[in-house]
Formats: sequence, C-alpha cells, structure tokens
Amino acid sequence: MGAGTDPGRLRAGRLVVTCADRPGIVAAVTSFLFTRGANITHADQHSSDPVGGRFFLRVVLHLDGLERRLDELRQAFEAEVAHRFGMTFALTSAAVPKRTAVMVSREDHCALDLLWRSRRGELPDLDITRVVSNHPDLGEAVAGFGVPFDVVRVTPEAKPEAERRQLELLAGSDLVVLARYMQILSADFLTRLAVPVINIHHSFLPAFAGAGPYAKAKARGVKLIGATAHYVTEELDAGPIIEQDVVRVTHRENVDDLIRQGRDIERQVLARAVRAHVEDRVLVDGATTVVF
Amino acid sequence: MGAGTDPGRLRAGRLVVTCADRPGIVAAVTSFLFTRGANITHADQHSSDPVGGRFFLRVVLHLDGLERRLDELRQAFEAEVAHRFGMTFALTSAAVPKRTAVMVSREDHCALDLLWRSRRGELPDLDITRVVSNHPDLGEAVAGFGVPFDVVRVTPEAKPEAERRQLELLAGSDLVVLARYMQILSADFLTRLAVPVINIHHSFLPAFAGAGPYAKAKARGVKLIGATAHYVTEELDAGPIIEQDVVRVTHRENVDDLIRQGRDIERQVLARAVRAHVEDRVLVDGATTVVF
Amino acid sequence: MGAGTDPGRLRAGRLVVTCADRPGIVAAVTSFLFTRGANITHADQHSSDPVGGRFFLRVVLHLDGLERRLDELRQAFEAEVAHRFGMTFALTSAAVPKRTAVMVSREDHCALDLLWRSRRGELPDLDITRVVSNHPDLGEAVAGFGVPFDVVRVTPEAKPEAERRQLELLAGSDLVVLARYMQILSADFLTRLAVPVINIHHSFLPAFAGAGPYAKAKARGVKLIGATAHYVTEELDAGPIIEQDVVRVTHRENVDDLIRQGRDIERQVLARAVRAHVEDRVLVDGATTVVF
Amino acid sequence: MGAGTDPGRLRAGRLVVTCADRPGIVAAVTSFLFTRGANITHADQHSSDPVGGRFFLRVVLHLDGLERRLDELRQAFEAEVAHRFGMTFALTSAAVPKRTAVMVSREDHCALDLLWRSRRGELPDLDITRVVSNHPDLGEAVAGFGVPFDVVRVTPEAKPEAERRQLELLAGSDLVVLARYMQILSADFLTRLAVPVINIHHSFLPAFAGAGPYAKAKARGVKLIGATAHYVTEELDAGPIIEQDVVRVTHRENVDDLIRQGRDIERQVLARAVRAHVEDRVLVDGATTVVF
Repeated sequence: MGAGTDPGRLRAGRLVVTCADRPGIVAAVTSFLFTRGANITHADQHSSDPVGGRFFLRVVLHLDGLERRLDELRQAFEAEVAHRFGMTFALTSAAVPKRTAVMVSREDHCALDLLWRSRRGELPDLDITRVVSNHPDLGEAVAGFGVPFDVVRVTPEAKPEAERRQLELLAGSDLVVLARYMQILSADFLTRLAVPVINIHHSFLPAFAGAGPYAKAKARGVKLIGATAHYVTEELDAGPIIEQDVVRVTHRENVDDLIRQGRDIERQVLARAVRAHVEDRVLVDGATTVVF
Repeated sequence: MGAGTDPGRLRAGRLVVTCADRPGIVAAVTSFLFTRGANITHADQHSSDPVGGRFFLRVVLHLDGLERRLDELRQAFEAEVAHRFGMTFALTSAAVPKRTAVMVSREDHCALDLLWRSRRGELPDLDITRVVSNHPDLGEAVAGFGVPFDVVRVTPEAKPEAERRQLELLAGSDLVVLARYMQILSADFLTRLAVPVINIHHSFLPAFAGAGPYAKAKARGVKLIGATAHYVTEELDAGPIIEQDVVRVTHRENVDDLIRQGRDIERQVLARAVRAHVEDRVLVDGATTVVF
Repeated sequence: MGAGTDPGRLRAGRLVVTCADRPGIVAAVTSFLFTRGANITHADQHSSDPVGGRFFLRVVLHLDGLERRLDELRQAFEAEVAHRFGMTFALTSAAVPKRTAVMVSREDHCALDLLWRSRRGELPDLDITRVVSNHPDLGEAVAGFGVPFDVVRVTPEAKPEAERRQLELLAGSDLVVLARYMQILSADFLTRLAVPVINIHHSFLPAFAGAGPYAKAKARGVKLIGATAHYVTEELDAGPIIEQDVVRVTHRENVDDLIRQGRDIERQVLARAVRAHVEDRVLVDGATTVVF
Repeated sequence: MGAGTDPGRLRAGRLVVTCADRPGIVAAVTSFLFTRGANITHADQHSSDPVGGRFFLRVVLHLDGLERRLDELRQAFEAEVAHRFGMTFALTSAAVPKRTAVMVSREDHCALDLLWRSRRGELPDLDITRVVSNHPDLGEAVAGFGVPFDVVRVTPEAKPEAERRQLELLAGSDLVVLARYMQILSADFLTRLAVPVINIHHSFLPAFAGAGPYAKAKARGVKLIGATAHYVTEELDAGPIIEQDVVRVTHRENVDDLIRQGRDIERQVLARAVRAHVEDRVLVDGATTVVF
C-alpha cells in the first residue's frame, strides 16, 4: 500500500551525510550539488561539538531526472566529496517509499493508525507491505486495508523457529516497525534482519522500562505519562530515542485510564517517529539521535 | 513576608479529611457544616477505589467568625463526625498563612521566584519567614525582599552540628521548601523537623534520580526534560510527587542549554506545588498524592 | 454499536444539578442520597461566584437496583430537594449509553476515530447508532464497523428537504456529533432536533472562525494551531466550548502540513469532548461550560 | 548590564540572508565563507515556496579575528554574493550584544524576568541599557539590578511631548522591548525610533486582541489561555508573531486566576522571543516570521 507519486517527488531527493566535523564540508557538498544542477530546497545541519564533534547534514534537493541518475550521482559524490571527508552518506529519491513491515500483537491502535495514515496519503514515504502478528486477533481489521496479514505464533520453546519464519516474511523490507509487538526480538534476529527496527514503548523512557509501565506509573504517582519511539538494539528499551511525548494525569485516573490515555500518545509518537525515519530525517549519533 | 488579608479570607476555611471509604461520609460532613451555618463554596472528593479504598475530601467553607471558632469546631467535628468514621482531618483558616522557611544553595531561580510571587501577593497562603543557605551567594538578592537570610555552612565532618543550627532556625515553621538546596537532609533531621518538606528535583522523576540529571538526560538523548516537586522522605528522590512538568528539547541543546531551559520548568513546578500545599490541596496517599 | 455492560455499571448512576447558589445545597443532596442507601463514589461541585453565582454539582453514585428505581428516585428528588432549591437536575444510569448519530462530510479522521474508540470499548457511555453524510465517500470505511450509513445530499436549493430527511434519520438520538460535517445547520433544524449537537472546529476558537482556518492561521503566522469542540448554537462557531487543544507549528509547515497536523488534534479534542458529554460531565453555564 | 564575553564569542558571528529563491544561493554563500577561512558551525535555511518563494538563511560561523574584519567581510560579501542574488543580509559579531531598552508600565513580571535572566548571564546577546516607564512603581525593583530607570508620564493631551522625551531616552538602542507597556505607540514614534520593537500581548493572538484579554477569555469560556510576542507595527496587535504559548485553564479559574497564570506564560514567551531576536534567529517574512 503506497501513495501515488506526484511529479514533484520524481525530481526530489535527499542527501544525508555524517562525518567528523571540520571546515569546508558544507561548501564542498553544496558546490557538488550546484555543479550538477540540483536546487537545494531545504537543509539542516548539526555539529555535536564545534571542536572535535560529529557533523550531520540533511539536504533536500530538486534535480531533473534524479531517479535515473541516482547511481551516477552516488559514485561521483563518493569520489569527489565523501572520500575526502571520510563521510558516510545516503542519497535517496523521494519517489521510492520505504518498504515497511509492521509487527503487532493484540493492541490494535498503533498498527491501525499507521495503516489509516498510509491509506489517507499522509505518509507518502511509507509503503506498508505486510503486517506480521503473533496473534490472529487483528486479521480482520488489517484485511480492510488490503495489506497481507500473517500470523507467526511465538512460544518459548519454538522461538528460533518462529524467528526464522518471521525473517522470511520480513525479507526485502527497508524498515520494521514494532507497533505494540510484545515479544522480545533476539540479538541474532536483529543481526540477520539488518534493517532499522522502530519500537514504541508505552512509557517515558528511561522511566518504567520493561513490562507493565502504566501500573508502575500509577504506583509511583507520576503526574505525566508518556510514550517513547526508539530504535531497537540488543539492550531492551535502551536504543536511541527518536520521539517522545507525554500527557497530564491526576490521581483520578486508575491504571485502565492510564492505558487508555496512553494509547493516544503511543500512536502519535510512533507515527511521528516513523514519518521522520522514512523521510530520512533521523540520524543516529551514538546512543542518541539527531532528528532534523 | 505575607500578603494583606482581605475580609473574605477571615471567613474562609478549609476542611481536609481522609479515612477508609464507606457510605455516608459526605452526608455526615456536609450536614455537620450546614448545621453550623457554614456555606460550602467548593468541594473535591476522591476515592482510591470504590471498594476497600481510601476516601479523601477537601471542602472550602465560608463561616462568620470562623477564626475565633476554630477550636470549638475542631472539637465538635472530632466528637460528632471524625471519631465515628476513623478520620484524620485538618480544619484551617485561610486567614492564617503557612509559616515557611526556604532552604537554598547557589542556584537562585527557585528561591527568588517564590519570593517574587509572595511579594506580588500571588501566594496569600504562604508566609516566607526566612531563607537559610549553605552559601552566602544569594544574601544580597534575598535582602531586597526584606526576608532574613542565614548562612549555615555544611561540611561532611560537621554535618550534625550544621543540622542542629538549621533546626534552630527552622523551628516554628509549618513548611520547609528546598528551592535547589543541594545537600541531603538526614533521616534524623527530618524526624526532628516534623513538618512537611517540599523539594524540587531537576528531572522528570523517576528518570534521572540523583545528581547531574541534565547531563544524564543529554547522554540518554531524551526529547523532553522535566522537573518534579515532591515531599522529602528518607529515601532520596523517592517521596510522593506533588507536581511535574516537561519541556521539549532537541539534539541542538547542549547540557548548559538543558540546565537553562530546566530552570524555567523548575521554578514553575515548585511554585505550583508550594501553592497547592499551602492551600491544603495536597493529600498524601501512601507513596503518592491526591492533588485537588 | 455499544459496549457490553459490566455489573458495576448497572448500579452506577449520575446526578447532575444546577441552581442558584445558596447554603445547604450539598447537605440536602447528600442526605437525600444517603437515606436512599446510595454510596457517593465521586463528586464535583463548582460555584461560578460565592455571592450570587450559579451552583453546579455532579455526583457519581452506586445504588443496588438503580436502573429500575430511576423513576421513583427522580420523583422523590424533585419533591424533596429540587423543588426547594429551584434546581434543574438529571439523574441517569451509567448502564444506558447515549444514542448518538454522527454527521460527517468527506474528512474521515474524526468519524473513524469515534467508531474505532467505540469498537474498542473505550467509550461505554456512547452508542453510535448511525452515520449520516452528505457524500458517499466514507460508506465503505463506516461499513467495516457495522454501523448504518446514510447519504443525504445537501444542495442550496433543496436544503429544507435535506434537513427534513436528516431529522427523520436522527430521530430518537440523545446526541448528534458533527465529526467534520461541513454544512451549516439551520436554526430551525436545531430547534426541531432538540438534542445537544457537538461540533469540532478546526481552529483554536475564537481565532479563525468560519471557513479555511488553517490557511488563515498560515497567513497570520501563528506558532500554535488548535481545534475546538463546542455545542452548536444558532450563531456559527460561537457555542459553548467543551474542549480545546493546540500543537506547535513553525514556518516550515505549509497549509497542507497544518491540515495534517490539525487532524491529530481534531480527533483527540472531539473524542475528549464526546466522552465528557456522554459521561454527563459537561454543564452549560450561559455561553461557557463547566467540565467536571 | 551585559554578560562577560568568553573567548569563543569573539570569534563567532552570524550571517543572515534573505532573497528570492533560486539555485546556487547556498553554494555561493558557503564558498564565500570557506575561502575566507570561516567554519560554519550551524546553519538553517528555509524556502517559503520551492517555486517563486523567498529564501532565508542563517549561518553561525567561527572565524579568527572576526570582530575587526567585520567591515571588510561585509563589503566583500556585498560585492561578491549579495549583489548578484539581490540579497538583504546582516553579518554580526556574537561579541556585540544588542543594546536594548525596556518599556514597562506597572506589571513587573516581564521586565523583572528579563533583568533577572540578563543578570544570570542567560542572555549574553542582550544588553539592557535602561528601563523607561510611564509610572514610578517599579523604580526600586529595577534599581536592584543597577539599570537606569526613567519615568516619562504619558497623558492624552501631552502624548507628543512624552514620545519626544522617550525617543531621546531610547536613542542608540538596537531594540526596544515592551514588557507590558500599556500605552499605544504612535506610527510617527515607530518611524522615528527606526529599530525593532517587540511587544508581549497577554492573549493567544489573533484571539482577544486589544484591552482586557483575560476577561474576554473568561467570558468566551476558552480552555486554554496564552500569550504572544510580536513585532510592533502601526496596526495594533497585528505585527508579525515571534513566539506564542498557552496554558490549560478550567471553569474553576476566575479572571484574577487567569491573569496570574497568564503572567507565567507572558514572561516565558517574551523571554524566548527576545532571546531569538538578539541571537539573530528571527527573519521577517511579510506579516509572519521565520524563527530558526
């Protein structure tokens, strides 16, 4: 399920660059683009420290025939600019949405919200290719969106087998989104998957990591509850944070009320994080992120 | 330093009640007040659980001659209502502000903000009687508000001696506010003080308890930073939370920026918590609070 | 489409009272309830002015056999309490959800969000009985929720005819929700409908009333955009406000971005307002509301 | 009253550029800076429309000896870059804070907040050179900050005379801040002053423009109140908005409560707007602003 491509997107691309900071980077990049006839319509840059820090750059550019010139441009940029500055970079076309698989358990709100936004055309850079669940519950709701839905049961004794089956289904994805998928993915699984995985955690991390965050929040008596979208790493709930938000609560809300209110935050935080990722606006900086 | 008392406040009082929940409490309390000629101008109630929970009630009442009838009313309420329901209760006059001592180290924003609000008349229920610091830095700024300022140096070896001196200065206070006071108070000190102590912690607890929360927040890459006002208990940063708030940050802010932005949240969160406390709107429920 | 009724709801009821403020109201109401064996599990009260103001009270009560005793209790309350204080009041059972019709044009987000929350059981006091639209676009999406969907075309020349047909469809409703219904309802229509109508306006009223609020917001350069849920009155966008919220925007967002971000606010604000209304938590006070 | 200058600031500068958008601007600017040996430590750019829009750029640069080379660099930039693209531009040194006069009436919170932030060193780009008031009330409080305080009475009949006196006092300022100054400045005054004037309006504009916004907000029953910092133009409360924020209110707050809560928003919104302006982060785009 993808969005129709408007003509402007065929010409639009994004160049994302990371390297050690030093003088001349922006001049080199912009001169390269200018000599190729590209127009820079937006640019963001960040230096983690003016002295000895990391440099991050994201450029949105318009260039006739970008899509068929992508390979040529990548090679030229590598040879003329990236090599000299020791950059890692990615040059992408806005006409090619990220092929994305959604994993979900029983809570429907995050998965349905992404499917709904995608159907509306709100996320043209996102192409939800399939939904994989460890429960059959959401089959009917997902079917209404015309997206393949597969059930892979996960039991403690047969987890390796389940992960093998999941990897088959996820093959070819550019991104995997855990939209309230309540199983822990093994380090081996993440290594084999080899694409970014975004998770939505139902607390304001690092508070209340692990299971049952709303009950913990009620017991601690916090006055705000939140949600956190982050990249998944081997360490549970510790990956780089992409987006967070909170909502005010009082003594009047019980745990079920917190869960209900939390859903509204979770689906919004996840949608914003996924949007930022598929628009190439998230750059990882060690244990943290730069979000342009 | 207190606010002038307007005539309405002389008649206004507050009745705060806590007990095990059971039928008939509200009827008993309101009938008691009605037969004494009191008009209920505001009431809040909360039950932590309809079955087997705790009951919390705060009533704002207007009654001619309240202040001189306080003792008589307390005795009658104890005999006629509180005893029957096993209540703890407090009946206070809005004409008597809480005598409050502020403790502070070097950061001025929270202490000055309370002094400024008090001078403006924003906190008529607060009477800041003195400021006690372990550093002389803020002496001049506090002097401008006409409030006594005392320095009690605290060193590891002479902490008991320092706490003795502090207790002398704080004697007679109804409330102590730690407005960025960076020393840990001993359990013995808290026991002897025997009045509520409100602390402002410069993080969104329970995240980043302890020292250096903004540096920890930067390292973890959170997208919101916050502040927490809570009652002080023996366990560091673990007392019942009264108020919290957050502000959005990005990768662009360094630790100093977070500290600066955090100040705006800290002073507001502390001011709101102190206001709620001196208006008798905070009721402790185990490790949490009910804030009416 | 309604939620299953849990046993607790069969015993739960709500008493909502408005009258001129004077001493003794709360005592009279709570004594009445206590003598009937009702347990008050929650209560909110408000006085618009301690002197000469209006008094507002909402009580949540538990009483065995409430549902079959409703008529008897209403008559007794009228005779014993309401008459004496000149009250208007409503006594309702939490077991009876409000029969609600949703009107919508082409934008799906608000209507689908209410349907989705209702299906999940998030709004047990809401029973969405039908959806009425002036366009066929959302027929399929609504059908997935098993709720009747009717199209009533509205043209300038045949508006009276259309309103007649709409009134037939809406007959028997306790509430009508305009979930981005883009036609103005005539004063005559509202009079004949004779039940509350809640509208979601896509701006932070009173700013940008009327059509095209996001374009107006962009032109004015505001830094926050918002949404407003209000009761519909004869005067366009001027009825009592139930709920509002905002989201931060910058110069980077164009009008389409504002529209997209606004949707997230609109559906949340409308859902909160509808929830408050069907839980009998909204009391109208002239041109404003008291929301308990 | 200014902040001490750290060595890094002596080398830091800002280049702000506006022109019609077209290809090659960024390449030209960054090449110019690179060939002069400047290191770009931060850059923001915005195009109001990829086709036919305005282009906005702000660059933070580090360059040895920047301060003494400013004139030479300005001339070279004009000749080599600005002329070619039809740019307006400003090249400033971060070592030179903006000379700022504060105008205030009787409400102290906004003026004292700016003075306090400046004294703390929070606003190194701001140099508050004097405070001018139409009332003597705040004389003592301002004196505590060591900033000159002048009273210029304003009466309807002698307004031209008052404005003449004010212009004398404000001569030499880079910026004037109206920190709750409750008199309207004449068009003639603004023309003669010829520097930017920032005002804080105590409502969420365009709602409740003019006098008495909190009373209007209470009467309309809004659920959020706000504040707006904007540049002053001839048309009252209609200048380009720099910053806005809101706070949630309920039926419980009366007009005085709204005024009190509004103060917290007003001082924060004004402080953020002033900070952004003195850091050269605000670019006017017709009736709106770009805030980098």
